[in-house]
Amino acid sequence: MASKSITGNYFEDLTPGREIVHAVPRTVTEGDQAFYIALTANRYPLACDAEFARSLGFRREVVDDLLVFHTVFGKSVPDVSLNAIANLGYADLRFGVPVYPGDTITASTKVLGWRESSAGDTGVTWVHTVGRNQHGDEVLSFIRWVLMDKRDKSTNSGVDDAPKTPATVDPKHFHIPAELDLSRFDASVTGGRAWWEDYEPGERIHHVEGVAIEEAEQQMAARLYQNIARAHFNAHALKGSRFGKRVIYGGHIISMARALSFNGLENVVRILAFNGGTHSNPTFAGDTVFAWTDVLERIDLGRPDCGALRLRLVGVKNCDPRTEEQPFKVADDQGRERYHPNVVLDLDYTVLIPRRR
Amino acid sequence: MASKSITGNYFEDLTPGREIVHAVPRTVTEGDQAFYIALTANRYPLACDAEFARSLGFRREVVDDLLVFHTVFGKSVPDVSLNAIANLGYADLRFGVPVYPGDTITASTKVLGWRESSAGDTGVTWVHTVGRNQHGDEVLSFIRWVLMDKRDKSTNSGVDDAPKTPATVDPKHFHIPAELDLSRFDASVTGGRAWWEDYEPGERIHHVEGVAIEEAEQQMAARLYQNIARAHFNAHALKGSRFGKRVIYGGHIISMARALSFNGLENVVRILAFNGGTHSNPTFAGDTVFAWTDVLERIDLGRPDCGALRLRLVGVKNCDPRTEEQPFKVADDQGRERYHPNVVLDLDYTVLIPRRR
Amino acid sequence: MASKSITGNYFEDLTPGREIVHAVPRTVTEGDQAFYIALTANRYPLACDAEFARSLGFRREVVDDLLVFHTVFGKSVPDVSLNAIANLGYADLRFGVPVYPGDTITASTKVLGWRESSAGDTGVTWVHTVGRNQHGDEVLSFIRWVLMDKRDKSTNSGVDDAPKTPATVDPKHFHIPAELDLSRFDASVTGGRAWWEDYEPGERIHHVEGVAIEEAEQQMAARLYQNIARAHFNAHALKGSRFGKRVIYGGHIISMARALSFNGLENVVRILAFNGGTHSNPTFAGDTVFAWTDVLERIDLGRPDCGALRLRLVGVKNCDPRTEEQPFKVADDQGRERYHPNVVLDLDYTVLIPRRR
Repeated sequence: MASKSITGNYFEDLTPGREIVHAVPRTVTEGDQAFYIALTANRYPLACDAEFARSLGFRREVVDDLLVFHTVFGKSVPDVSLNAIANLGYADLRFGVPVYPGDTITASTKVLGWRESSAGDTGVTWVHTVGRNQHGDEVLSFIRWVLMDKRDKSTNSGVDDAPKTPATVDPKHFHIPAELDLSRFDASVTGGRAWWEDYEPGERIHHVEGVAIEEAEQQMAARLYQNIARAHFNAHALKGSRFGKRVIYGGHIISMARALSFNGLENVVRILAFNGGTHSNPTFAGDTVFAWTDVLERIDLGRPDCGALRLRLVGVKNCDPRTEEQPFKVADDQGRERYHPNVVLDLDYTVLIPRRR
Repeated sequence: MASKSITGNYFEDLTPGREIVHAVPRTVTEGDQAFYIALTANRYPLACDAEFARSLGFRREVVDDLLVFHTVFGKSVPDVSLNAIANLGYADLRFGVPVYPGDTITASTKVLGWRESSAGDTGVTWVHTVGRNQHGDEVLSFIRWVLMDKRDKSTNSGVDDAPKTPATVDPKHFHIPAELDLSRFDASVTGGRAWWEDYEPGERIHHVEGVAIEEAEQQMAARLYQNIARAHFNAHALKGSRFGKRVIYGGHIISMARALSFNGLENVVRILAFNGGTHSNPTFAGDTVFAWTDVLERIDLGRPDCGALRLRLVGVKNCDPRTEEQPFKVADDQGRERYHPNVVLDLDYTVLIPRRR
Repeated sequence: MASKSITGNYFEDLTPGREIVHAVPRTVTEGDQAFYIALTANRYPLACDAEFARSLGFRREVVDDLLVFHTVFGKSVPDVSLNAIANLGYADLRFGVPVYPGDTITASTKVLGWRESSAGDTGVTWVHTVGRNQHGDEVLSFIRWVLMDKRDKSTNSGVDDAPKTPATVDPKHFHIPAELDLSRFDASVTGGRAWWEDYEPGERIHHVEGVAIEEAEQQMAARLYQNIARAHFNAHALKGSRFGKRVIYGGHIISMARALSFNGLENVVRILAFNGGTHSNPTFAGDTVFAWTDVLERIDLGRPDCGALRLRLVGVKNCDPRTEEQPFKVADDQGRERYHPNVVLDLDYTVLIPRRR
């Protein structure tokens, strides 16, 4: 028998059409919910106030959307991205039925396409990952593409079979929980003063606070999701890497920026979709993260109780964009437009929010 | 519509008589209980031993008193103390009905009074905050006063309307849980050897151990309580502050000192009240915290099974007061009595403890 | 009354035959389970997948074996090892009935024997510690021996009454849970490809990943187990100690190495026993821990569904033993064989694993 431990798939291993059932399903509990709050200070009340959740028709408090995301993502790491050089982007990410504490999440991935680099030393792989609860209901699905290392850098097959990914998630794919009843929505619980109609495309909302990130926090975050990607943990090996140290799990930055965003988006009920997202620059322990939101679009869902907002959530580090000058994109030496080095997250996503009564 | 995000109230905004219902009620779960133990090593068994709790008449293990305190306090921060310069003191703090895992805590605050500084640039605000469970029962109430920043430092209204606060909580306000039955109290569970009668006013109990505090710990503590006060998180902004760095959440110091106090106060069942308390000096990451207790008073509750003890819990840093010389108060340059710079907590509080059988 | 706080037992206090019921039983909850995963990234699915646990006949997910170990161990610290200089070894450690979230663990210890040092300044104490659930069922029992400080170093009683400890745990003492039913064991859940028959004595399995350890993590780990040993916390006092700083709780290293071991041992269902174990060198914050497993023995349990494997789990620091030269033992100046300074754990233990169908 060959080596019993695995060192992960390489570009060559993830052939289009291949399907992988990820190991180690995860029962998400109120223990995970508490830990997630301790990591992020997340205040969206659907995930921390059982009474509020019940008033909206839910059985009890709901597992935070991003905790579901991280759990499914983490499941995929040993099979998909152990040898990833970078996580390049997300598309067509859709949240499904709500997850309750006690539910067990399983995940599987299908390879959608690949494109080898011209030098043949790396390649980009597109995958579609689906998370389900113990009843088989979809709780999340998304496409991501990853820059992969090759097992054999000397070969060059020239494969170039990149799939098309939608620029935004089609509203027909938005899952609005069947149990959701907004008739008793009480804004004194959220503290929110703004409704769907109040958010204007073009508007920018600064989320005010900044939060420093510690190494112990990002390690515990990634581990809570059983995400074992070495970039977040293996300080010894990383001494010889590009950055010379651990890189904060990019998903943790999404969580931190999202938690900050509560200040200004209090009435948001849930995330419907990620249209696209980029970890535009790495974050390291000691960095302080800030966030702002640009309102991109107000989407009429054809119902009187709620609508959707398409938002751009931007995370920046070591600069308070509310009070200091902070460019978003800048020209590099060759005149190409790049994210400013402080910009660590650019997430285009869509949320559900009540309409004014 | 004006800015959607909030930057917090200033001195001028908190006018006496104003009442605020704080946003984001919090369901406290066994996840929070576990996290609280990991932060503090809290060993008071009522909060970690369901069998012991049941033997005393409780339904199951009870949410630790201080976890209730931090949760209620945290709720009040966005409305009361986001622009606080310092949390000056506590008075008349009373614990109410026990909180069980699964209960949801709401909080509201009424402004009691204010006093502007003679320079008109700051002011002290007195508030009364009440926490309730989902049934509307009071779980905690307290007065605190805060040194606030002014929105407009150029005005000087000269307001001076400070409320009277009691020096100690009147025993008639002590809430002794109706379910409490001490007839089966088993000291082999607590490890305690001393009872109400054994504690002598004037006695000092050193709690022996010392615990270093890490930045990740204090951040996760404050976030667990959804306390977003920037002094604990925003390393970037704090570079330009008085201390140049993050300050440990003062409540975390209360928790650490209280957890240390188990060694010598093992039979204490619950906290009844805080008579007064001061975060006498700041604590920073890397500091090691020690604690001692001075027994102030033995209060006869007129019942045969238990009595109350009024205690002074003192937290000090970077000095082991059991083995090293550690002054409590010292004279400053002007001859005024000040806390020694190592003294980080001076808490006058009252606890419930069984009488000897 | 004498001092109310305790400073722990010394060598002289732990006389053979003495029995101690440890204080502060601990209800272990799903909050603790989540925290344990966040500390370790533990992926053995019996502890994190309720559906998998149920498919094997268990009521729900089971408390991780090592979380049970740490909890029982932590209970014994205030009575046994507060004045320990070093934890020398373990023997005859047996896991008993499974612990479920909500169970309450109590612990007691009997002193088995002692041996004073020839200089009379220290001594070795052997103790037998037993953990039980709220029904009185044994969940764990083990022998450990500890190098203890003496209360009075000037006396020298010459006591030398060391107990015999078995080199390995007799298979007749293995507790195979009555509820265990492997007929529906699904390796797609574990991701494992190897069964009892596939592990060959003499085989070495490298577990690939390495994980850095932060001070906040080890402190929170030890505190989660209410383990108050000062070596892990009291930075102030430790400035004057041999290492000048905090030492990582040795049990945390066992947990980290065990969590890493999942990669290569995925189908292991539970730990049956520790035959022996040594924290061969200290670990400090900032160290990166790696692990390998040597297969020592395949033990036929006389049943068709599963067998036992005796394994040596080795933890090393700051060297990736899969890709770098890493000696296990080396000769010291006097030619005596010692663990290489990088080797931080040498654990001889036995696990239960399904046989090939």
